Amino acid sequence: MLTINRDDLDQMDKRSRTNLVNSLSGYKSANLLGTIDQDGLTNVAIVSSVFHVGANPPLIGMLMRPHTVPRHSLENIIHTESYTLNHVHSGMIEQAHQTAARYPKEESEFTATGLTPIYRGECPAPFVGECKLGIALKLSEKVTLANETELIIGEVVSIYIESDCIEKDGYVDIACLDTVCVSGLDSYHRSERIKRMPYPKPS
Amino acid sequence: MLTINRDDLDQMDKRSRTNLVNSLSGYKSANLLGTIDQDGLTNVAIVSSVFHVGANPPLIGMLMRPHTVPRHSLENIIHTESYTLNHVHSGMIEQAHQTAARYPKEESEFTATGLTPIYRGECPAPFVGECKLGIALKLSEKVTLANETELIIGEVVSIYIESDCIEKDGYVDIACLDTVCVSGLDSYHRSERIKRMPYPKPS
Repeated sequence: MLTINRDDLDQMDKRSRTNLVNSLSGYKSANLLGTIDQDGLTNVAIVSSVFHVGANPPLIGMLMRPHTVPRHSLENIIHTESYTLNHVHSGMIEQAHQTAARYPKEESEFTATGLTPIYRGECPAPFVGECKLGIALKLSEKVTLANETELIIGEVVSIYIESDCIEKDGYVDIACLDTVCVSGLDSYHRSERIKRMPYPKPS
Repeated sequence: MLTINRDDLDQMDKRSRTNLVNSLSGYKSANLLGTIDQDGLTNVAIVSSVFHVGANPPLIGMLMRPHTVPRHSLENIIHTESYTLNHVHSGMIEQAHQTAARYPKEESEFTATGLTPIYRGECPAPFVGECKLGIALKLSEKVTLANETELIIGEVVSIYIESDCIEKDGYVDIACLDTVCVSGLDSYHRSERIKRMPYPKPS
């Protein structure tokens, strides 16, 4: 086993440290965050830090760096209290990844990347038309963490999903949806189910 | 597309809602959390809500439900301010999943599941000997969220990793480590790298 101590980490060049530390948590989900500003300008940004917070009420968390690319998204969420999350599938990795480029505020990443904004129900924020699972969320809680990262928690308003990928017990087969995951900053993976496990009991 | 509104969700039976909402965030990382109490009793618990918070300083976040199984782990982290995270690989899914059973406090999940506690460096908390990547963390921040879930943020103290799975630019090939990911509550997946993408720039 290779040992990397904190001193080694602190002395690494920035890019290598970023690559390494981004790998440590394991696989990350790949979602596109859809938002809109008060003038109707849309924004879409890839986020890899979306996580389950609770089922009842249904809550989903997400981390955002206020000083990096997604800050337009963060401002839009704060102003409109509405956003969508959309699973990235393997046929749209290039477009999804490209949303992370630093476009000027007046240019929508939808236009720049060719992704399609679509509107559903009463959700003001756009969904990504190419995605097979989309969620409308309402801002529920915002917490600024010690490193100035913003934790955004949203309450699920509605879910849109390809109907042949949901099982009777509510389980969504995200492999059936061809949802991808991310490791590090830039590596995209497809997944294959090994098994579903029974509810664990002692002995 | 199937539409599931909030009313539909609220009217689902608890198990189906839990399955469904747990699938919405996408793939989740699979880690074993190692802790020790003040009397030297070890604890290991699977956690699927570990996420990257920052690279400099190196911070990793994790959500814990105080009223469910991992509460011994949470108490241990608060008392000792030390814990480890260890990537689950495909050869240890049964043992890793079984750590979620409700064992009595006096029985270590290491003993119950046959996983091996090992100690490295000055970290008081045990690592999982079977894992190919282990991280020693020091408690950095604890935030209680609105649904009473506890957000635990740890600062990376040291990293132990199989040396043939780390590349020159710091990228850890977690597919090489055979790290698995989780969807929903109980589905384990192996992943295959599709591609690494270049740094995205406008145009």
